[in-house]
Amino acid sequence: MRAEIIAVGSELLTPYRWDSNSLFLTEKLQEMGIQVAYKTVVGDNREDLHKALKDAAKRANVIIMTGGLGPTEDDLTREAVANFLKRELRMDEGILDSIRHFFKSHSMKMPEINLRQAFVIEGGTVLENPFGTAPGQWIDAGQTKFALLPGPPSEMKPMVEHHLLPLLAPFAGHRLLTKTLKTVGLGESAVEERVSDLVTGLKNPIFTILAQPGEVEIDLTLKEKEKEEGGEARLEKLFAAIVERLQENIFTFRRQETLEEAVVSILKEKGLHLSLAESCTGGLISHRITDVPGSSEVFETGYTVYGTPAKVRLLGVSQETLDRCGVVSRETALEMAEGAKREAGSDYALGVTGIAGPTGGTEETPVGSVWIALAGPSGSTATFYHFIGERERVKRSASQAALTLLWKELKNGGKG
Amino acid sequence: MRAEIIAVGSELLTPYRWDSNSLFLTEKLQEMGIQVAYKTVVGDNREDLHKALKDAAKRANVIIMTGGLGPTEDDLTREAVANFLKRELRMDEGILDSIRHFFKSHSMKMPEINLRQAFVIEGGTVLENPFGTAPGQWIDAGQTKFALLPGPPSEMKPMVEHHLLPLLAPFAGHRLLTKTLKTVGLGESAVEERVSDLVTGLKNPIFTILAQPGEVEIDLTLKEKEKEEGGEARLEKLFAAIVERLQENIFTFRRQETLEEAVVSILKEKGLHLSLAESCTGGLISHRITDVPGSSEVFETGYTVYGTPAKVRLLGVSQETLDRCGVVSRETALEMAEGAKREAGSDYALGVTGIAGPTGGTEETPVGSVWIALAGPSGSTATFYHFIGERERVKRSASQAALTLLWKELKNGGKG
Repeated sequence: MRAEIIAVGSELLTPYRWDSNSLFLTEKLQEMGIQVAYKTVVGDNREDLHKALKDAAKRANVIIMTGGLGPTEDDLTREAVANFLKRELRMDEGILDSIRHFFKSHSMKMPEINLRQAFVIEGGTVLENPFGTAPGQWIDAGQTKFALLPGPPSEMKPMVEHHLLPLLAPFAGHRLLTKTLKTVGLGESAVEERVSDLVTGLKNPIFTILAQPGEVEIDLTLKEKEKEEGGEARLEKLFAAIVERLQENIFTFRRQETLEEAVVSILKEKGLHLSLAESCTGGLISHRITDVPGSSEVFETGYTVYGTPAKVRLLGVSQETLDRCGVVSRETALEMAEGAKREAGSDYALGVTGIAGPTGGTEETPVGSVWIALAGPSGSTATFYHFIGERERVKRSASQAALTLLWKELKNGGKG
Repeated sequence: MRAEIIAVGSELLTPYRWDSNSLFLTEKLQEMGIQVAYKTVVGDNREDLHKALKDAAKRANVIIMTGGLGPTEDDLTREAVANFLKRELRMDEGILDSIRHFFKSHSMKMPEINLRQAFVIEGGTVLENPFGTAPGQWIDAGQTKFALLPGPPSEMKPMVEHHLLPLLAPFAGHRLLTKTLKTVGLGESAVEERVSDLVTGLKNPIFTILAQPGEVEIDLTLKEKEKEEGGEARLEKLFAAIVERLQENIFTFRRQETLEEAVVSILKEKGLHLSLAESCTGGLISHRITDVPGSSEVFETGYTVYGTPAKVRLLGVSQETLDRCGVVSRETALEMAEGAKREAGSDYALGVTGIAGPTGGTEETPVGSVWIALAGPSGSTATFYHFIGERERVKRSASQAALTLLWKELKNGGKG
């Protein structure tokens, strides 16, 4: 069973809105072992909608449509599916009653145009909508099944849970088995090279590699049909082999866990405190750490020392160091980290100084140059990085590198 | 000219990722008068990709693909388009050189697998990528044009601006005329109510209202065909009427401008300095301010005083106040803002203290309670807010409310 999700609505083809419903639908379908093969967005336009349906029917067995069930002229989903299937639209007295009832219970008179919402495609099953006036529909057209769902998430979600999933149950596959790991400190190609002999040409489980600045995720997913053939054991074995190659760099096996969560969790476990001295990251590391619930147990003080005088005043960075070595230097980063550790009385401190851009770069110290220092119970170290990209990317990359340094130190026996 | 955007990547068919690139692309295409008729997401799978291309070529004249240009086995876009067009893939020595150079300039050796990125489709034009190793490609295949772009936004966006848009220029339609305004300090329904009599039933220009925590955007877009019929004058008149209703709350007429940019820009103009004392926002305001290029001219010091002792030590909040009024109180917020202003020697300071959740709430001070103080040249004020939502949303809302307070003060004659 392969699904295509079609989101209907011209507003979803503007720069302002995106089809967030499909994430929820994908989650629910994946849980049932139904693969989402395509997602399509199409506007409120008869011809375009017809083509989208025609193409989808050739490449998927179940087509799930959201939106276009409202009462206005623009709402074409019912009509488009009826035309595509060459079936009639019939007024359903039961729906009409419940729409009337919906308005009445909200002390309103039903506008004439809402009549349109009472039309059902011949042979279709009505999916009740207690949270709005647009009922959903389910049409089993033999080879292809169609679900028509309302666009507003607050109406669509309960309808899926209570009405659509039971209808899909007979077509459920085995739940997909997925193993995940996330690494830091290695680029995408480096990760790929380390495991390439294990995964090249691999068809099942499916190997997925996903990179963002300073982080690479690997997912192994077993295809449904392999479950009976000892595929699960094969998945486990392969995953173990991959883990062995990347051991030093894996910070989590949970897809939802962020690096900051992993860091906060080790700090908590070891009863350690962190403080921060941020220049070019401008508070981003502090923001990331405090996104973690319970981070107040391990983090008390962050210094955003964006200006040079602030570095001197708050952290005691010496003017002599600044004059001799410059603001973006190993020495300044070290004095920042050590100053934060001392002033905040924490066990560890990170100091970050660099040039986020777009201006401020020189030939010697171009945009993207960042020094990151880590001060800890057994001394301090500093590392130089040259990040690429624009201002926000440099900030993000630097925050990731700083958290990576700390994570490595903590993992390799940071004192507790 | 009708476009289809195809986002390639199995990760975009999971519940965890969505195709955000298409919003940027849609904006750029819309500005040129090229209509995006469809958006499709397809996984890293030869057969599915082929079908997606086949269907797209029947319903659009320009197909813009993002993703699948990486160096790994999963990256199939080059190959899929070459197969679809029945053209050869040829190694391009120039690209190979620049990939080698890219790795060299980052002090790395080029991994063998990056060779794949040097292959160009016969007859294709190479689109340079200064921010990564995956060059883009442009193939004019007569009736249908194809653009192959890298998936990472930081590589895709500059490539579109510098290389793709000039190639699309010959196919540009009339630019759609759009007027935009963005407000703070009013909810979506409040904004809607103020203008509803002006826009109800409006078909052209199209009225769009878009809300996010603490910010509402209104767009008026004239449909192209109306341009000749005095539509432009009608648009201008309607927009002026809307502006009049919302005047006090409009912080920008540029869609791309953020509230933090507007704030930094007024501070610069008036030669004023800001400092920050953040507790529950945990560095987020500082992060937002430092996302603005040139913010170092107006912002030097941020205190993330996440723990209570840090509030006392760094900002001189009195223990007596903390004991008497509590950490989340008007008095503490005021002392935080005043302390930051004094310690940093700035003209203005914001102090934010509250409960971001999920724990820490009490009956008197539930999760989402936040006090925000603004200290300035003519005294201090503090305001209480109760934000809804989860931790990250509370942080975001509080940072937005704080910047709004400052923006209003500066707009209403903050001293310079």
